[in-house]
Amino acid sequence: MYSIGIDLGGTNIVASVVNDKYEILGTGSTPTNLPRSAEEIFDDIAYACRAAMEEAKVELSDISSVGMGTPGTVNSEGIIEFSNNLKFDHVDARALLKERLGEVEIYLENDANCAALGEAYAGCGCGSKNFVAVTLGTGVGSGIILNGKIVSGVNCAGGECGHTVIVLDGEPCNCGRNGCWEAYASATALIRQTKDAMNKNPNSVMHEIAKAEGKVSGRTAFDAMRKGDKAGSEVVDNYIKYVSCGLVNLVNIFQPEVICIGGGICNEGETLLKPIRDYVAKERYSVHSKIQTKIVKAELGNNAGIIGAALLGSIQ
Amino acid sequence: MYSIGIDLGGTNIVASVVNDKYEILGTGSTPTNLPRSAEEIFDDIAYACRAAMEEAKVELSDISSVGMGTPGTVNSEGIIEFSNNLKFDHVDARALLKERLGEVEIYLENDANCAALGEAYAGCGCGSKNFVAVTLGTGVGSGIILNGKIVSGVNCAGGECGHTVIVLDGEPCNCGRNGCWEAYASATALIRQTKDAMNKNPNSVMHEIAKAEGKVSGRTAFDAMRKGDKAGSEVVDNYIKYVSCGLVNLVNIFQPEVICIGGGICNEGETLLKPIRDYVAKERYSVHSKIQTKIVKAELGNNAGIIGAALLGSIQ
Repeated sequence: MYSIGIDLGGTNIVASVVNDKYEILGTGSTPTNLPRSAEEIFDDIAYACRAAMEEAKVELSDISSVGMGTPGTVNSEGIIEFSNNLKFDHVDARALLKERLGEVEIYLENDANCAALGEAYAGCGCGSKNFVAVTLGTGVGSGIILNGKIVSGVNCAGGECGHTVIVLDGEPCNCGRNGCWEAYASATALIRQTKDAMNKNPNSVMHEIAKAEGKVSGRTAFDAMRKGDKAGSEVVDNYIKYVSCGLVNLVNIFQPEVICIGGGICNEGETLLKPIRDYVAKERYSVHSKIQTKIVKAELGNNAGIIGAALLGSIQ
Repeated sequence: MYSIGIDLGGTNIVASVVNDKYEILGTGSTPTNLPRSAEEIFDDIAYACRAAMEEAKVELSDISSVGMGTPGTVNSEGIIEFSNNLKFDHVDARALLKERLGEVEIYLENDANCAALGEAYAGCGCGSKNFVAVTLGTGVGSGIILNGKIVSGVNCAGGECGHTVIVLDGEPCNCGRNGCWEAYASATALIRQTKDAMNKNPNSVMHEIAKAEGKVSGRTAFDAMRKGDKAGSEVVDNYIKYVSCGLVNLVNIFQPEVICIGGGICNEGETLLKPIRDYVAKERYSVHSKIQTKIVKAELGNNAGIIGAALLGSIQ
């Protein structure tokens, strides 16, 4: 049997047919074109599903379930309770999909949770049942898999590890708190930290790098460090400390088999991961245990969310 | 059927026969008398179990399983890998118990996890399946129940929420990190904060209260606040902020049905709980959800660990 995984994003809608080896056999996609009504968006989601089935040469009767990952909070009835990105407020996504696709099992989940599920089963988790995925992007996203199932909390709003305070009364966070991990460890935060350091260090090579690139990015400080720039190195060292502090917190709470880190910053590879692993090894509570959490880079990129969505039916 | 729950503590060994309504029918206890060898301690554990069965008027053949909570890290084979309190290093607790009790199913778990399980099923959790228990004592202990099972991590060292940093580079913690929740929200931390405020405020009524009590305790600042003392009020306000910050972190990660707070500080009742609930309501991420985590006081006291241990067999 096959299943369909859908990634409903702020920019694109992507649907894929996935087999039980987690292989993608066919894909359909279309721009999300926000702002639009839920009805129009779900017309296009159904279109993407049919395009994916056509490419995979399967019929709806071959599909055991359809899963969709979406930004925001989704409850167990398949209602998107709230999504700031999509401007959805209590949208009955399961009903809208069923009207358009016909009789098939439909599951919905938050997109970060789908990505975590995909990485846990089919990606860098190698099938691990206790797994945490962290994405260092515009914010700090996270998804938690325990005993092979998504931890979504009693109101489907759980797994928000980015909104745990690591610096009491620290930098303001979009969520309204101060000092959240996200306010220190997101790519957005790294860019802010880089700009601050540039202001304080007018002779830093970061200025040249940013000028050549046309902007300050999450790479600026890393590139400066590679050129021997002291101010750039300091930015990187502090950023790694912020990321690692939150990771040790997660290790001490969950002791998962694997924590994976995704997002653009991960393109730094071992430059980022090695010092993070060293920091975690030094600070984790479980010094006496032979088994320790592995910290690895996410593998599946955008496909993580699609494969995770396709898996939703099989983990119920 | 009945089960036996054992609480192996640093001070006392307590064993109770528990029925399937979570009622304690008979108890045996004996001092732990540390330091002693594991063999001597397990002789006394078996003695306490037999005394409990005698009082409950049941035989070993009536007992479906025996569960024991112990300080430290216990693995799934029933080996206490490490316990600083008991000075145990790789003690095969299951084998030692089996030798002394005979043929019965035996389960072991960390004591804080047992207490969480007991409160979740039989105490203030009212049977909730997603539950976090926090104990504000010498340290900050915690136990996490998700889908009715204990979250113990891949190496049975999970659930250490007290050792998550809330103040990066903050106060030193016993675990080796700086700025852990435990270093701010434990009773030990509250006493330190009270002493600091007394040093800075020689006219505070806290000095009189401590003199009358013969020591500075976790109640000193609360008592001073009730007498209108400004310095005492400030200590209490800050302490509540520290406790609440960590609680919001747990809400944002787990969105459990219930978080319960235990430990001596909880004798303050609503003086402590009301401002905590207000803080959490203001800072939690899930502002759009109708269902919100309840924050309540632990109910079962020392029996939580015993009832939780007795439950271990039924949740496997």
